[in-house]
Amino acid sequence: MEYPSKLIEEAVNQISRLPGIGKKTALRLVLHLIKENEQNTYALTEALNNLRSKIKFCKSCFNISDTEVCTICASHRRERSIVCVVEDTKDVMAIENTAQYTGLYHVLGGVISPINGIGPGDLKIEHLISRLNHNQSEIKEVILALSPTMEGDTTAFYINKRIKDLPLKVSVIARGVPVGGDLEYADEITLGRSILGRTLFN
Amino acid sequence: MEYPSKLIEEAVNQISRLPGIGKKTALRLVLHLIKENEQNTYALTEALNNLRSKIKFCKSCFNISDTEVCTICASHRRERSIVCVVEDTKDVMAIENTAQYTGLYHVLGGVISPINGIGPGDLKIEHLISRLNHNQSEIKEVILALSPTMEGDTTAFYINKRIKDLPLKVSVIARGVPVGGDLEYADEITLGRSILGRTLFN
Repeated sequence: MEYPSKLIEEAVNQISRLPGIGKKTALRLVLHLIKENEQNTYALTEALNNLRSKIKFCKSCFNISDTEVCTICASHRRERSIVCVVEDTKDVMAIENTAQYTGLYHVLGGVISPINGIGPGDLKIEHLISRLNHNQSEIKEVILALSPTMEGDTTAFYINKRIKDLPLKVSVIARGVPVGGDLEYADEITLGRSILGRTLFN
Repeated sequence: MEYPSKLIEEAVNQISRLPGIGKKTALRLVLHLIKENEQNTYALTEALNNLRSKIKFCKSCFNISDTEVCTICASHRRERSIVCVVEDTKDVMAIENTAQYTGLYHVLGGVISPINGIGPGDLKIEHLISRLNHNQSEIKEVILALSPTMEGDTTAFYINKRIKDLPLKVSVIARGVPVGGDLEYADEITLGRSILGRTLFN
């Protein structure tokens, strides 16, 4: 497409690199920014610059944090004997939203995915192992809360292999039919697993 | 939603102010930016800052431009006797893409919309009138290419009233069934107009 201005073209190119945003949406956003008060654009770009230059990762769990140690790791209300291993911050937020978990986290920053060139060395797996080693008296259980995909399963399998000799319980989150879902629409693998992994009725 | 960091929260709030982007999409974009090389974020914010601080509007047609006079107005290949009045830059781009128009443009910067508090004074209508007055010998026709909505029609009606005493032809773009559209799915107003506005076959 022919743009009326190089500035527009550059802005559209930059915005459309973001996931899920194409050239048309990018152009719509750019034209919106031009129509708006220019202070709004500067507020947006400042927030993004701050985000990138000031963001920290908790030195214990590697979750995003404003401080050296994140609020969850620093909290005295959290159970320090359980560590939930997740892929990224979004998963921490999702689990926190359930209000069902009071332990700590460990954010891997991704999952093993050879197709995307991500190996165990690119993730915080060594940090997890040294964390578990250094806190053997404190940590009693590791929950592997990774996505039920091939990559997630591979990562869980790899972590389990590395930590199975440590004196702690390793668990994975339950797989089964989603609450509110209709049984007849569940895929056969999920349904099969939910039968194999059945629990006692009370 | 509870965010792990104030920086994330601020960035999410700023991004989700953009049209068509909610908090969830904004969070996804923010987490994407954090994962990426930080130079990418800086390139994005610089493009947006440049966009806002350096953008110019053509002093003749008010289209977005990198220069005082836009490339269309400055081109010697364009017919200078026709001026096409449009709502905004997107419309210029859309008409340019058809490759059916070789005249000049006049970008109003919006349409009259009392519900949004936009009156004739907020648009470049006075500039259009003075442009037509100053170039009476050159401009022979004005095409009103506004959206076929209530606001567009009101604006076209208002402009026509203001310029009908000038010695020029005023036309509007044809309304009718879209090419490739099925007749039975056309709404009755469009179909009715396409019958009233029928043209001779060859």
